[in-house]
Amino acid sequence: MLSNQLHNGLETAKLLWSRIPNSEDGEVDGGSLLRNSNGNTVESLDYEVIENYAYREEQAQRGKLYVGYYVAVKWFLALLTGIGTGLAAVFINISVENFAGWKFALTFSIIQRSYFAGFVIYVLINLILVFSSVYIVTHFAPAAAGSGIPEIKGYLNGLDIHGILLFRTLIGKIFGSIGSVGGGLALGKEGPLVHTGACIASLLGQGGSSKYHLSSRWLQVFKSDRDRRDLVTCGCAAGVAAAFRAPVGGVLFALEEVTSWWRSQLMWRVFFTSAIVAVVVRTAMGWCKSGKCGHFGSGGFIIWDTSDGQEDYSFEELLPMAVIGVIGGLLGALFNQLTFHITYWRRNYLHKKGNRVKIIEACLISVITSAISFGLPLLRKCNPCPESDHDSGIECPRPPGMYGNYVNFYCGKDKEYNDLATIFFNTQDDAIRNLFSAKTIHEFSAQSLLTFLVMFYTLAVVTFGTAVPAGQFVPGIMIGSTYGRLVGMFVVNFYKNLNVEEGTYALLGAASFLGGSMRMTVSLCVIMVEITNNLKLLPLIMLVLLISKAVGDAFNEGFYEQQARLKGIALLESRPKYQMRNMMAKEVCRNQKVVSFPRIVKVADAVSILQSNLHNGFPVIDHVRNGETLVIGLVLRSHLLVLLQSKVDFQHSPLPCDPAGVSKSIRHNFSEFVKPVSSKGISIEDIHLSSDDLEMYIDLAPVLNPSPYVVPEDMSLTKVYNLFRQLGLRHIFVVPRASRVVGMITREDLLIEDSEDPASVELHSTSVRGHRQYSMISRNVDVERPLLNGLLLQDHMLG
Amino acid sequence: MLSNQLHNGLETAKLLWSRIPNSEDGEVDGGSLLRNSNGNTVESLDYEVIENYAYREEQAQRGKLYVGYYVAVKWFLALLTGIGTGLAAVFINISVENFAGWKFALTFSIIQRSYFAGFVIYVLINLILVFSSVYIVTHFAPAAAGSGIPEIKGYLNGLDIHGILLFRTLIGKIFGSIGSVGGGLALGKEGPLVHTGACIASLLGQGGSSKYHLSSRWLQVFKSDRDRRDLVTCGCAAGVAAAFRAPVGGVLFALEEVTSWWRSQLMWRVFFTSAIVAVVVRTAMGWCKSGKCGHFGSGGFIIWDTSDGQEDYSFEELLPMAVIGVIGGLLGALFNQLTFHITYWRRNYLHKKGNRVKIIEACLISVITSAISFGLPLLRKCNPCPESDHDSGIECPRPPGMYGNYVNFYCGKDKEYNDLATIFFNTQDDAIRNLFSAKTIHEFSAQSLLTFLVMFYTLAVVTFGTAVPAGQFVPGIMIGSTYGRLVGMFVVNFYKNLNVEEGTYALLGAASFLGGSMRMTVSLCVIMVEITNNLKLLPLIMLVLLISKAVGDAFNEGFYEQQARLKGIALLESRPKYQMRNMMAKEVCRNQKVVSFPRIVKVADAVSILQSNLHNGFPVIDHVRNGETLVIGLVLRSHLLVLLQSKVDFQHSPLPCDPAGVSKSIRHNFSEFVKPVSSKGISIEDIHLSSDDLEMYIDLAPVLNPSPYVVPEDMSLTKVYNLFRQLGLRHIFVVPRASRVVGMITREDLLIEDSEDPASVELHSTSVRGHRQYSMISRNVDVERPLLNGLLLQDHMLG
Repeated sequence: MLSNQLHNGLETAKLLWSRIPNSEDGEVDGGSLLRNSNGNTVESLDYEVIENYAYREEQAQRGKLYVGYYVAVKWFLALLTGIGTGLAAVFINISVENFAGWKFALTFSIIQRSYFAGFVIYVLINLILVFSSVYIVTHFAPAAAGSGIPEIKGYLNGLDIHGILLFRTLIGKIFGSIGSVGGGLALGKEGPLVHTGACIASLLGQGGSSKYHLSSRWLQVFKSDRDRRDLVTCGCAAGVAAAFRAPVGGVLFALEEVTSWWRSQLMWRVFFTSAIVAVVVRTAMGWCKSGKCGHFGSGGFIIWDTSDGQEDYSFEELLPMAVIGVIGGLLGALFNQLTFHITYWRRNYLHKKGNRVKIIEACLISVITSAISFGLPLLRKCNPCPESDHDSGIECPRPPGMYGNYVNFYCGKDKEYNDLATIFFNTQDDAIRNLFSAKTIHEFSAQSLLTFLVMFYTLAVVTFGTAVPAGQFVPGIMIGSTYGRLVGMFVVNFYKNLNVEEGTYALLGAASFLGGSMRMTVSLCVIMVEITNNLKLLPLIMLVLLISKAVGDAFNEGFYEQQARLKGIALLESRPKYQMRNMMAKEVCRNQKVVSFPRIVKVADAVSILQSNLHNGFPVIDHVRNGETLVIGLVLRSHLLVLLQSKVDFQHSPLPCDPAGVSKSIRHNFSEFVKPVSSKGISIEDIHLSSDDLEMYIDLAPVLNPSPYVVPEDMSLTKVYNLFRQLGLRHIFVVPRASRVVGMITREDLLIEDSEDPASVELHSTSVRGHRQYSMISRNVDVERPLLNGLLLQDHMLG
Repeated sequence: MLSNQLHNGLETAKLLWSRIPNSEDGEVDGGSLLRNSNGNTVESLDYEVIENYAYREEQAQRGKLYVGYYVAVKWFLALLTGIGTGLAAVFINISVENFAGWKFALTFSIIQRSYFAGFVIYVLINLILVFSSVYIVTHFAPAAAGSGIPEIKGYLNGLDIHGILLFRTLIGKIFGSIGSVGGGLALGKEGPLVHTGACIASLLGQGGSSKYHLSSRWLQVFKSDRDRRDLVTCGCAAGVAAAFRAPVGGVLFALEEVTSWWRSQLMWRVFFTSAIVAVVVRTAMGWCKSGKCGHFGSGGFIIWDTSDGQEDYSFEELLPMAVIGVIGGLLGALFNQLTFHITYWRRNYLHKKGNRVKIIEACLISVITSAISFGLPLLRKCNPCPESDHDSGIECPRPPGMYGNYVNFYCGKDKEYNDLATIFFNTQDDAIRNLFSAKTIHEFSAQSLLTFLVMFYTLAVVTFGTAVPAGQFVPGIMIGSTYGRLVGMFVVNFYKNLNVEEGTYALLGAASFLGGSMRMTVSLCVIMVEITNNLKLLPLIMLVLLISKAVGDAFNEGFYEQQARLKGIALLESRPKYQMRNMMAKEVCRNQKVVSFPRIVKVADAVSILQSNLHNGFPVIDHVRNGETLVIGLVLRSHLLVLLQSKVDFQHSPLPCDPAGVSKSIRHNFSEFVKPVSSKGISIEDIHLSSDDLEMYIDLAPVLNPSPYVVPEDMSLTKVYNLFRQLGLRHIFVVPRASRVVGMITREDLLIEDSEDPASVELHSTSVRGHRQYSMISRNVDVERPLLNGLLLQDHMLG
């Protein structure tokens, strides 16, 4: 009787665990990443209760409909994520370019009369923008500071960092980056856009901000962590696609840099999201072409188009390109090291002093940046314009109010330009466009480029880590293209007979610095190709990246990994550590005291266990017969807390719930068991139980995960790690070595043919059911012993 | 004593299993794919034997060197793969383009005098080329027939199809595809190039053809299946990169379409290989520019450059584009269905009749193809040349001996061209270039395009499956671009005011047909962008692909999946099947009789077990004390066969080998345990043992895998499938539910910090060793019972 009840309980548990979509093996920290789940989200058939065939048929139909609906919702949300991220990117771009354009236009008009007044106005506008950004971030959305990519990486690796995917973070990120980028700081809007995309995706995935209770019933299919994670991955790709207008690069970035678990089915949806972003941004730019959006949309869809640049390259150029790679690796590694130490110092000393210090710091940096970018070009002597070449279409000096090369700033004559102002006293996008530009040989002097390199590098190092949203892509491109152009100038002078463009080297320099700092490979390559629309340079970019990544790796970790470690985001890497080879599974849990639950637990005991330790999952162990024990599953703290809070499962008797207990579990709305992202969930302290309640019992069978993954205690830790990491698990039971083998599963056993006919699937599952019930019972009445005897006999015979 | 000996035996086994790099969980069919392995290939320390610290230090040093060496070899082989595949592609291209160019030049010069003589010559040349191809394939390399992609997919999914990666297959593929493509059949060289790349990679990975014994000692690091598989993945990417000159597309193709297990560490190496291919091909083309290679190299690096095509698109165009997507889905699905049935018929009836039938079939198809491609344009009336537009640089008719649009074929006047001949009586590359070409509005008549579409579609369906190497990319592009151009013509007539290019629609049509047939997504998109150098059309290509894939999926499976199934290549998909949800692990092995080995097995018994069944892995079960049994590991058939063949491990006594047995295992060269790809390995019939030998015993402990993955018998089959598929396993033991939990492993337990200092790693591992020994002994003397008692007590208290 008891074992039969256990059987029923386990069946119920399976039912529940298949109802909570993909929540097997435990939602622990919110961002639980459960690829290993049953792989289904359709409702399982209530075969224990319903024997009627027609009803079952109807259920199957409903299941089919549900699957279609579910897929449709997934794609619809991907569409919304794409549109949302695209619109956010357009909004940020319009705002930044208009603020910056207006700022430069105003300054240029004032300096016609007074350079000092212009300087003051320039500093003030920047200060106001930066102040607004740092104020929003510090007072409203502290999680919006910084790049956001390490946090998203952590989330997708299975960690829930509090607050990173909230609605307020989204708002803070959008408005904060408008302020910080528009305010002329040495940082970019690309990292923040990735975070923005992830926030939009996450909010859509949980049906809006939980604070505003926008959750609607039709989004309840999305209460699973895997689906949310997939959508956040889409959001990341959308962010990159929007930031660089690089849809393929976005997909690859999500694949290479951000996600930890990738499913090939996901790729196409991620790509779809990126394509939607591209369409949205392109449409918005088309709409803005007629001047409706001010300064926005003038650059074309390709941000830094160099497709009219260098046509071909020769073997002699490979050496200077390799040199660029080495420089990129060195400067990138140095950049990582410096930002690491400065961020460490900031986190542990400076930023502990409160928000006021953060605001002062950011404002100070803003003033210094403004002063340098305005002041240094003043010290620079202007150069005469080169011989006008009408074919290239580049005017010198550029007409007032226009973007372009050859900025006339503090020059005596009309036909002169200030090369330092061309890159320093300009928006970053324009500066990069100027550095990448072809057909402008000898535009820049080595002195100006060196000055800019040193100053901007320092500013970028100092700026990163302040309490404003900050991306590292654009500063990286600025730094890299500066020394790249320097090398290019040298090459132009050295190989006089070759058809070399300095802009090509600037582009390679940008790739090398990003490679040396972020250590991205494929995605960076594709992003560089997409932002410059120049496929021909792909092998060169690859070469440079190979070198710079290798050089950088010799010194330290990648930028995001270092920042993640600083923030205490411990990422589970895809490879096990070297020393795990010599360790066994049980060694890592040697000092643990395993706290287990019996199947029927007294409420008071459950509360005391939950209070006395912080474990998130507990084994459930039952007595089967004559005192022998059996591990019947895993119960999660969060599920226990839901049970304790709702109280509907409390019972008076310490006996298992009756066989009709299946219906009881339906009292729960299954979405109760899933907590929203970025929230803290229920705590044991929040639950108040009367002394009567404490005397009751709970049968855990309906809520436990009946078959968590297990490993033998002396398994190599490398193998355990692979199991854990590849399947995205949360808990693994370490159990003693088995005494016998019931069967072996090989490839052939798993090649079950998909029958197209739903009726035959039904029949199949019915027949399987029969067997299952049989085998369940058979185990309980112990008729399997003969198999073991057979084994023993065989052993005997062979031994 | 006994248990102590078991302990020693297990330690030895661990040593061995770490020595055979990554061969854990079994090499079964040759192409065993073992991602789950210990993740290391460096030698483990002989700590059981060697207690001397200095010696251990030296070993560690050697290990470090070895790792560096190993990584270097990996990259070097990737480099060689890239160079090899690039050169093979260049060789194929030079040959094909010269054969075809010479053929067309000769025919054109003859038809100036006699069309009949020209026809005969044309048919004969094609026949000779096709005959040579089919002769090579049927008599020398039968595995070289067809595309090869399904087979490679199967190999990378863990199946070893005999002969697909041999040296002769490589040769057959290269020369066969020169013949079949040069002979003007309706097939392409892209699929065969992927196979070629895979063959080159596989041969390099095993150090040359095993037949010629080119295997060298420094390649012994590569005796692991995982490394070979990784290299084959590189080879596939290289093949695509070489075929389309699309390095990024190659990487994505390998990622999306071919591999089953992807590691992010691999991505960069695959990308590197692709880049090398691009550099090799580009260099060769640069070298050929001066006319050294005949007709080769004239098209430029971008195969079908459309970057000067349509600049922008408007919303009105989205509808006809969607129509193209639908057509692509329908025609693609139909293509799959037709080729499936025809190939089925061929395999089961026609090709069973022997090689002669295969040769006759191919020759017949060649004659028909030649007759149609020559004859149909003859029936077509020539059109007058359009008003000459000198800006576009397109001449009409094209000058003799040149490639280009507007072919003058059987035309009365000089200023006329034959539009059907422009696409039909031309090399495929040129035909596609003409179909994609911009600024040639009204070049083709709807009638010609329809005729071509119907004829070529039929030819492509009939041709695929003949005994020649055959790719489906180029025919797909031909078919797709034809109906795409038809739709484009309609759009040009309908939306007169828009700036529409017919070539754009041809490109979208090509994408749609490939999407509808092969169901590739991201990689196809990127390949289309790279072969046309037109990033602006990316969102449109995506749109078309989304639609055509969805439409195609409604009818049947993708082309490669269908072909793989026809060939009996059962791929383990990444998702478990729906009906697995309702099944338990033990159900799939219900009818199995588990045959297990004792630890010490009599040779005669081992032989009889191996003869009486075909299992590839056996559990090893040992008696520990008072008759209780313990599963101590998994032994592979192939390892047993090696033991039986070498006989060095035979012993007279049925007792475990002595504690110094560790040194015994060193008698084996560990590479003995790995069999080369595409070979059949040792069979039990090959082993001849004397009756004395049969009376001896073998101790299996040194060769068994001490901890295969296990699952409880009632675990959901979905979970088992995920475990099996994600980790790329070969065997899983189904065991009874555990009676207790020794510990729980969670994320935190696996976050072991990497200590930079090798000495401290050493120390750490030493201390671990101590514990391990302790715990091993402790288990054996049963001091762990108190833990269980504690659990029981606790359960009691709570229950």
